[in-house]
Amino acid sequence: MKTPSQILPDWESSLLNSAQQVQDLSLTIPLWVEKRGPHSEIVFSTRIRLARNLAKHFFPSSAPAAELTTVSDEVCAAVSKSGALTQPTFVEMDYLAQLDRLVLVERRLASPALADRKGSARIILGAGEYASIMTNEEDHLRLQSFQSGLSVRAAWQKLERIDEELSNHLDYAFSQQLGFLTACPTNTGTGMRVSVLVHLPALVLLDQMGKTSRKFAKLGLTIRGFFGEGTEVIGNVFQISNQLTLGCSEDDTLGLIEQVAEQLIELEQKARAQLLADKKLNLEDKVWRIYGVLRYARSLSSGEFLNFLSLIRLGLDLKILTGWSETLLQELMLVTQPGHMQKWHKASRVTEKRDKLRADIVKNKLKLTGQ
Amino acid sequence: MKTPSQILPDWESSLLNSAQQVQDLSLTIPLWVEKRGPHSEIVFSTRIRLARNLAKHFFPSSAPAAELTTVSDEVCAAVSKSGALTQPTFVEMDYLAQLDRLVLVERRLASPALADRKGSARIILGAGEYASIMTNEEDHLRLQSFQSGLSVRAAWQKLERIDEELSNHLDYAFSQQLGFLTACPTNTGTGMRVSVLVHLPALVLLDQMGKTSRKFAKLGLTIRGFFGEGTEVIGNVFQISNQLTLGCSEDDTLGLIEQVAEQLIELEQKARAQLLADKKLNLEDKVWRIYGVLRYARSLSSGEFLNFLSLIRLGLDLKILTGWSETLLQELMLVTQPGHMQKWHKASRVTEKRDKLRADIVKNKLKLTGQ
Repeated sequence: MKTPSQILPDWESSLLNSAQQVQDLSLTIPLWVEKRGPHSEIVFSTRIRLARNLAKHFFPSSAPAAELTTVSDEVCAAVSKSGALTQPTFVEMDYLAQLDRLVLVERRLASPALADRKGSARIILGAGEYASIMTNEEDHLRLQSFQSGLSVRAAWQKLERIDEELSNHLDYAFSQQLGFLTACPTNTGTGMRVSVLVHLPALVLLDQMGKTSRKFAKLGLTIRGFFGEGTEVIGNVFQISNQLTLGCSEDDTLGLIEQVAEQLIELEQKARAQLLADKKLNLEDKVWRIYGVLRYARSLSSGEFLNFLSLIRLGLDLKILTGWSETLLQELMLVTQPGHMQKWHKASRVTEKRDKLRADIVKNKLKLTGQ
Repeated sequence: MKTPSQILPDWESSLLNSAQQVQDLSLTIPLWVEKRGPHSEIVFSTRIRLARNLAKHFFPSSAPAAELTTVSDEVCAAVSKSGALTQPTFVEMDYLAQLDRLVLVERRLASPALADRKGSARIILGAGEYASIMTNEEDHLRLQSFQSGLSVRAAWQKLERIDEELSNHLDYAFSQQLGFLTACPTNTGTGMRVSVLVHLPALVLLDQMGKTSRKFAKLGLTIRGFFGEGTEVIGNVFQISNQLTLGCSEDDTLGLIEQVAEQLIELEQKARAQLLADKKLNLEDKVWRIYGVLRYARSLSSGEFLNFLSLIRLGLDLKILTGWSETLLQELMLVTQPGHMQKWHKASRVTEKRDKLRADIVKNKLKLTGQ
């Protein structure tokens, strides 16, 4: 006799395990985060996403519930058949508690919008979280790939292959004149958004970010806060992404982002050198005071903590602080987010209690630096 | 054959050693500071000073140089003969370098005005710095006595005895109608100024100091900053002193200050209890963050350091911090002042370098708390 999971296709039995899969995921650090890529002292990560839709289906916002499920099923089947993602994990958002959805948002696997979606919306994850797919977000498919550091070409190579393999099994909505058709016209064309997260504390400290932003805005770029659209800049981390998807090739977009990121790296490096030359003691003092606060605080809010970590990271990059393991900072950034804290440390949902626990976690971790 | 010091009276040979005496003094902590007096968790110290003048001499501001010397000599001879001060040390301000004068100001043995005086101005110190005399400040004599904590009666007992013993050897300017005559009419009468330094961080944190000050101002009191007239409030330390010297007895003044200090102690204790009841975590967090900053800062300015120490002291009083020796805080307050740092640690006269050294000293001292 066959068990239900033997009767169902792989992806369907994986969906039934959605909650457990997110639970397991939440206790790990993404492989792509652990591996430090090129220029990772300034560029946290490179992300590329492609918006794709299936011909002969309504866009998600106007599709009836049954059609959403059909779309999700078609995508899952295509992923499974094509082998586009290695060791794929299939997650149905509807099967997840609020906390598990939050964990996916914190890992940037789900958009905040997807976490609130009614009707079938799924996440399909490749091993190590290098690549993933959302179904029925704004578009039928949102393919994305992540790399540590500035790694535009590697991210694209991976994503292009996934896109091609899927296109053999799915009927993409495509127009010879416009390119890929999307729910929102701002994505039509390549459907591509390349974004890099850059850490520019020295430019901020030297009050040069206003000027820098204005200069790059003219090139068809958006510069905004950590979590994308509508979020403020926290921890001196800026997200740089392309505005145009129409009238330019994928290669144009990759080239533009790469070029701008390289210029920002150079400006930030100059600013860091200037800080070391002109204000070394002041900078050391700032960094070490924050280290002291992190070692002894009894309560740390999520926002101030990210701001503190920015200067800690600068201190590590400039060798003001030493003795930290390669991944301590990345781990701290991930596990002190509200959702992950609730998962890793059974933290309370009450903000005040969580701030207290965050301080405890950080204090204990920092003791390991032996300073 | 006799050496010069055998020919001269004791006090004159002591004067010749002025610089060495201040050097020796600068490397010690005053005995009265080490002994913690009543309510010393809130009242740092009690100080009483008496203004006295010699009949038949011009007040210092209008006396020719020779007369200033005569007055100083008469006072020194009287101190020596009377035994009013135990093991007196005699210091001529004119024999001191600027740095040594600063050390005396920081120990509150000289007023800033005395440190700048042209012509003979002296300080005569009793053992342990409990009592001392300035000559040719605003008045011919300024006698003062210090006690740790709220100790108005003990301070007065000591000072009254000194005053009486000196009066047997000096012809005080005294009027039956007005009392003791002084250079400035605001001191005429008793010539007495009683002042207590109170540490009121909880009242400040709860924003109750404005109301409290206004209430006590009506009683004929002055509430001002640490270093007296014209100085701002640093480190939540307030100096409470009497305004009136005419039309009231010494006993009235002592009683008033004692009573007001006791009321302030009670208000501050209530405020501390309220902080612990309503904002314990917040207070612990504040105290420990400052501890962390003090442990790791690379530069500490004198003013911010005093502000930090205020919360550290509160933390010790409320047992948030433990493991500190009884005198560590007092020692830190004394030796991190600019003049004392130059003496104890051969610190630079350049503020920036001194701020760096201050941070080093504090860091090394705090390591001893083992936290």
